[in-house]
Order: sequence, then structure tokens, then C-alpha cells
Amino acid sequence: MGGMAFSPDATLADAGEFGLIKAFTAIFEQGEHVLLGPGDDAAVLRIRNGHVVVSTDLMVEGRHFRRDWATAEDVGHRAAAQNLSDINAMGGTAHSLTIGLGAPADLPAAWALDFARGFAAECASVGASVVGGDLTRADQVVIAVTAIGACTQAPVLRSGASAGEVLALAGRQGWAAGGLAVLGRGFRSPRVLVEAYRRPEPPYAAGRIAAEAGATAMIDISDGLLAEAAHLAQESDVAIDVRRTAFDLAEPLVAVGAALGIDPLTFVLGGGDDHALLATFPDKADVPEGWQVIGSVAEGAGITVDGDAYEGATGWTHF
Amino acid sequence: MGGMAFSPDATLADAGEFGLIKAFTAIFEQGEHVLLGPGDDAAVLRIRNGHVVVSTDLMVEGRHFRRDWATAEDVGHRAAAQNLSDINAMGGTAHSLTIGLGAPADLPAAWALDFARGFAAECASVGASVVGGDLTRADQVVIAVTAIGACTQAPVLRSGASAGEVLALAGRQGWAAGGLAVLGRGFRSPRVLVEAYRRPEPPYAAGRIAAEAGATAMIDISDGLLAEAAHLAQESDVAIDVRRTAFDLAEPLVAVGAALGIDPLTFVLGGGDDHALLATFPDKADVPEGWQVIGSVAEGAGITVDGDAYEGATGWTHF
Repeated sequence: MGGMAFSPDATLADAGEFGLIKAFTAIFEQGEHVLLGPGDDAAVLRIRNGHVVVSTDLMVEGRHFRRDWATAEDVGHRAAAQNLSDINAMGGTAHSLTIGLGAPADLPAAWALDFARGFAAECASVGASVVGGDLTRADQVVIAVTAIGACTQAPVLRSGASAGEVLALAGRQGWAAGGLAVLGRGFRSPRVLVEAYRRPEPPYAAGRIAAEAGATAMIDISDGLLAEAAHLAQESDVAIDVRRTAFDLAEPLVAVGAALGIDPLTFVLGGGDDHALLATFPDKADVPEGWQVIGSVAEGAGITVDGDAYEGATGWTHF
Repeated sequence: MGGMAFSPDATLADAGEFGLIKAFTAIFEQGEHVLLGPGDDAAVLRIRNGHVVVSTDLMVEGRHFRRDWATAEDVGHRAAAQNLSDINAMGGTAHSLTIGLGAPADLPAAWALDFARGFAAECASVGASVVGGDLTRADQVVIAVTAIGACTQAPVLRSGASAGEVLALAGRQGWAAGGLAVLGRGFRSPRVLVEAYRRPEPPYAAGRIAAEAGATAMIDISDGLLAEAAHLAQESDVAIDVRRTAFDLAEPLVAVGAALGIDPLTFVLGGGDDHALLATFPDKADVPEGWQVIGSVAEGAGITVDGDAYEGATGWTHF
């Protein structure tokens, strides 16, 4: 993990801005495309001709994460995953991320460094580098991430779906929502669901594979499957129907549903945070490995489940 | 200004996430290099081969700005200027920015939209586009900006200065600090200094000009002239001396100094927020138009003023 320059109980104020930046910089290894990493006015990248995709997200303590529900390293993984997934959903691969961290002066420096380690590890899992950052005092922990990536073919937008196509899903879906429900009731098990919430495993290869297979529209499920399907429907000016029977409910989801008295499909249809992908393909035969058909696209507007309006929560809104 | 979809006293909560995003998106005009602006999982840019420079900054209410000291539009200008300047300090020109806005639910929607207008106007002044963003609830207003730019020649780093070179300054310096001192005492004049704080006028052309003239090192003055000179000295492993007589003190600075009982050079040597640039050049003869020699580079370490250690504040630290 490299030598920590601070005592184990040092706060950010104790460690000081420049000590912290030095410690962060040591954590962030740079890929070959990075000519200059953190430490100057800006990072310098060498980028080839082509489509560059850029996405940015904020995560706020108490709203997007709780320090008592996940370790600093988990939060780092989640913050990176959220942004890497946005690039994934364009059919691209992220190569460079920046990170802004606002935090109270009494935040343990160890929390910030563990967070950075988790963030860097998640980025490394797709070969991306943390090329720059900023650190400042704030009343609550705020994490601002920007991801930059490349597409080897035309990016897949939300707006390309047409009537007659199929809707498909990649990645596990509903697990993080199940884990969140468990944590919300004060429990810590089933561990596999809690871990799915703390450290999602987005299907990072699936975006590029879908783009190469001819996906017509794609979106990252961060706020809920049906909410994101509704975005696809709106942007593409089509109607989307999702089939309940398309989902094989994993045993832990069934168990938690039974224990909490919640239909486990609620987690699947309304849950976000797994960073699964939704995409449309012209035909069932086009759907590549790692993707499963879960619905269909028709003329019209809005989303339905098995042809009917859905009464449950489809996701969450930010205000 | 476009039609506002909300009533004049609407809060962010009243306006709702999607209404706000729509209103923001209407404000952000896209340049030709932007194939896809805000609204999808990521923006899509067309970038030519070459050096891409990336920088990120956080601004936090109560720490970097106060809503009673500057209008929303001013804060937007300042937030953009801070990041555009980082790209300027590499010798590059920004083309694309992302913006993350965290804010309390009761923030007036009009504040957010005016902020966005100021931000967009500052970006437009250098031909840059706001290509993406994120909006979420937070306890205080937090603004996270990432700027992406291009360099037509090798970026100018902080580490390239050598003994025997000259130190030069571009842009007005100390004005924003003078304005901040005035505001801090509860005054609103001299107006020209208060305006310099509220809406800096960074020398956006000076970075590229310096790079083309052979600047060996360069840095943006955001935290204080001497503090940034110290960064240059440290990264370049040299000593830097600044000459007091190099500065023609502008009349408003002299007046404020007299009124507040402060040596006006304090604003110049310790002040940031104007986003002036510091650079080193091999020789006085290399210093291009728009730049003025203010000191010299020697073997050794650290900064001095007229050969002596400086007792005043050199800038500020973030923790």
C-alpha cells in the first residue's frame, strides 16, 4: 500500500493539503497515454483521432453513500464504477479520470487515502488512470468525478431504438437494491447482496460488445431499470415493454424479499446502483453473449410491464 | 436568455431534476467539435491527434464564494475562469467543460440558471462548450468543474525553469485580493476592485503566446503570486526572486491600501483569484507582449522578495 506519511489517526487538517496530494499522487499509477499525471495545472494526455466520450457525476455523503454502510475503499470503488459505467454505456472504454474531493477538515486522512485506493483499483480494472484531482474543505464529503474514454466505433446513444426491436440487459440487476434494503433495515446479510451494493461489478466489457453487435440504443442503469428504460423510450420516441418472466430471480433476492415482505422483482425493476446496462438490438438474433432479452420496443410512448402500467417505484429522482 | 419554465421564486425542488437539466441544456450552446452535448450517458467530442490537457477544480460555498458577495452569474464566470486558466497555464486553449452542481433543495432555481448563464458566457469567451454535467442535492452549494483543452505545441509545465532565466507576469494581479479585502470589511467600493474579484479577467491569450515564445515553465496564480512562484521554484528545483519595484501599483489598490491600512503590495504578492499567469523565459528578450518581467531565477531553493525572505502571507492553503 505504500508508506503512509501520516499517523493512523491524522485528520485531513493534520495531514495538510500538500501532504495529502503527494500521498494521493503516489496511489494513482499512470498509463502510457498519460504524458503528465497529477501535480501541474493540468494533466497531459496523448489521444488518438476519434470519438472522445466524457461524463461527470457527483456523489454526496448521506445521499449517495454513508460512511457507516461501506468502507472508504468501497466508496472509492463505487464512485469510479458509476463513471466508468457511463463510458461503458456509450460503447466506449474509459482511459482517464479526474477526481475532486471536498471533505470536512476532521475527516480521517486514512479514509481519504483508502477511498483513493479503492477508486484507483476500480479504474485499474479497466486500464484507466486517475490523471488529476482537487482537494478542498467542505461541510460534507462530496466526490466529483469526470471520466474520459474512447470509442472504437460510433458511440451508442439513448435515442436510436426503433419499434420492433428487442430490449436486452447485461449484468446483474437488483442485487445492490436488495443490499441497500437490507442495510436500511439495520441488517448486514445476505452478505452477497450487501457486498453488491458496496462494491458493484458492472459488466464493463458488455458496452463495447453491444456496440460491435449493432446495439441501436444503450443506457447505464444507475437510477432504476424502469426509470432508465423510460429514458430510452423518451429519447427514442418509442414505447418499451418489460417482461416479468424474463428475470431469473437469484436466490438471495428471493430470500430478502421473503424476509422483508417485498416482492423481489421490486429490486430488479426499480433498483439502480448495480450499473447494469440496457440496450436495444434490431433482432433477438443480434443480441450478443452476456446479454439477455427482457422486453420489446413498439410504437408509442412510455414503459409498461407485461403490457400494463407499473405501480411500483421505477427509480429515484434527485430533487 | 430563453424562456424560463419555472416561476421566478421556484426552488430546485420545485423545478425538479429533469426540468432543470432541460433548462441548463438550453443554456449551453455546443461548438462544432461537440458531436453530442449534455443529455446522454456521456458527451461525444471529436478531437484531433495531439496533446489533450485536463484539469479539475471544486468550489464550495462559504469557502470559495459567498452568495451575498457576488451574483450567481458572477460565480458562474469565476468557476469557469478558474478552470479555463488552468488550461491557459499549460499553453493550451480549453474546448470542453463539464460541470457538477450540488445544491440544497431550497436553492432558487433562478440562482442555478443565472450561474449556468455566467458559466456559459465565460466559456464562450474562449470558444469552449459546456458538454456535460450532473445535478444533485447537497447541504451547501458545491461546484465541480473539469476543463479539457488542446495544445498546439508542447505543454509548458511547472518544472522547466532554470537558473539565469527571468520570471514574468501576465494579467492584472492583486485586484481581486483588493476587492475581497473591501468586501470582507463590509464595503462595496472601489467598484473596479470588487468587480475584479467577482468577475476576474484572466489573460486567456497569454498562455499560448508564452508557450510559442519559448516559456520554460508556467503556472496559474489562483492561490497567491508568491505561493505559486514557490511551486514553480520547487518543481523546477531553483530559487526565485521577485522585485517589488517591478509592479506599478494601480491607483485603486493604493487607495484601498491607504483606507484599510494595508501595504497595497500585499494584495499583489499574496493575492490570488485574478488568474494572472507566471512564467519563466530564458532571457528578457524572449518575453512577449502582454508579459512583464517581475523577477529572476537562480540556483538554490525557495522564494525571496528583493533578495530577502518575505514575512507576509504568500497565499492560502486549503486545509
